[in-house]
Amino acid sequence: MAVAVPATPKMSFVVFSGDLDKLIAAFIIANGAIAMGEEVSIFFTFWGLNSLRRHNPPKRKRKAMDAMFAAMMPSGADRLPLSQMKMMGAGTALIKNVMKQNSVHTLPELIASAQAGGARFIACTMTMDLLGIAESDLIDGVELGGVATFLGEAAESTTTLFI
Amino acid sequence: MAVAVPATPKMSFVVFSGDLDKLIAAFIIANGAIAMGEEVSIFFTFWGLNSLRRHNPPKRKRKAMDAMFAAMMPSGADRLPLSQMKMMGAGTALIKNVMKQNSVHTLPELIASAQAGGARFIACTMTMDLLGIAESDLIDGVELGGVATFLGEAAESTTTLFI
Amino acid sequence: MAVAVPATPKMSFVVFSGDLDKLIAAFIIANGAIAMGEEVSIFFTFWGLNSLRRHNPPKRKRKAMDAMFAAMMPSGADRLPLSQMKMMGAGTALIKNVMKQNSVHTLPELIASAQAGGARFIACTMTMDLLGIAESDLIDGVELGGVATFLGEAAESTTTLFI
Repeated sequence: MAVAVPATPKMSFVVFSGDLDKLIAAFIIANGAIAMGEEVSIFFTFWGLNSLRRHNPPKRKRKAMDAMFAAMMPSGADRLPLSQMKMMGAGTALIKNVMKQNSVHTLPELIASAQAGGARFIACTMTMDLLGIAESDLIDGVELGGVATFLGEAAESTTTLFI
Repeated sequence: MAVAVPATPKMSFVVFSGDLDKLIAAFIIANGAIAMGEEVSIFFTFWGLNSLRRHNPPKRKRKAMDAMFAAMMPSGADRLPLSQMKMMGAGTALIKNVMKQNSVHTLPELIASAQAGGARFIACTMTMDLLGIAESDLIDGVELGGVATFLGEAAESTTTLFI
Repeated sequence: MAVAVPATPKMSFVVFSGDLDKLIAAFIIANGAIAMGEEVSIFFTFWGLNSLRRHNPPKRKRKAMDAMFAAMMPSGADRLPLSQMKMMGAGTALIKNVMKQNSVHTLPELIASAQAGGARFIACTMTMDLLGIAESDLIDGVELGGVATFLGEAAESTTTLFI
């Protein structure tokens, strides 16, 4: 596989985590990169996929195991927990509150902004199979792909972060 | 230190974490990179070293502190916990179960596959000293090295991930 | 934005985590890179900023929310907790103890060494606003900057790690 040295920087991300604070950091970096004219590509795997789940997806028949996972995992960017200072949910409410007071965009807004700015969102199909997530469970504008898709993006990127 | 621009992409990893799910993600990426013809180098430090420990290493005399660490830390890739949804071990069993149902390789299989594919495994000697891990405690085919070895690999890599 | 291919490797870091063990790993890598003649740049965001807080900062008037955050978060590199094996603080004391026995530098020493070696420390101003941290709360020699400053550093770096 040949590598093209990019004319402008390109950033790629593996979003593995489902922690609100890590996702906010990732998406602030991603939106900053877009603002500076960089190409951005984000591969969502494992718990990171929860940030792309719709809160009320179209109903469908699920296997018992898949329904259990769906019920146990937070559905959507607005429902992710903090990585620390959890305090049974109070820490998360606190952070959302100070973000609002400081006019920092919410995670759903940051995600929408990255999409509008042309970031490529790739959902890891292996994780979707494992956790029983269907394409209809995800927000619009998400491609399905595997590790080879991510590796192609990373090979062209100036910077790749594992979040 | 001069930098050679690689003709083919090369990936390096710092595996700091000892979480099963993060390790699975890292090794799926590593095996994907090998399949695409990339060179792969993995530096195991801190809790990441537990993934290389043998479950039944040859007996040896250990200092009291080392024996305590050895007993407290999971020994081997088959015994690592999840980063979340731990549920006192039930989450880990659940994930292993769905991986099996979906024909995803286990972590020990993914590690063996990366080794067979030529990935370079480097165990951080400083961590080994700190946590009282001897070379005989580790699986075969692991080099010992320090941060300078990792930095040499990273300088030649297209992509470097901290896991 | 044009990209200069660096003549010598350059490393940049996003230090998001406030975990003692992750910070030690990051700073051992950073000091190793400095020893090998690399440029090093570190962007401290979210909980990572706690590693730069003074334990006894000059007194100042704080809003109630800011005072609460300041009291809840560890102040300074000497007070960070481990990411695991916390055991209500015993794990942290244990690791510090074996580090001392093995003549590994403490985190405050590693931080001072990186600064003395010319590493650029950038404190994320957005996090400072969110968590109510003032410049006078931080150790000396820290620049204030935003995501654009980090992205400029990352675009010039051979390796960028998200910690």
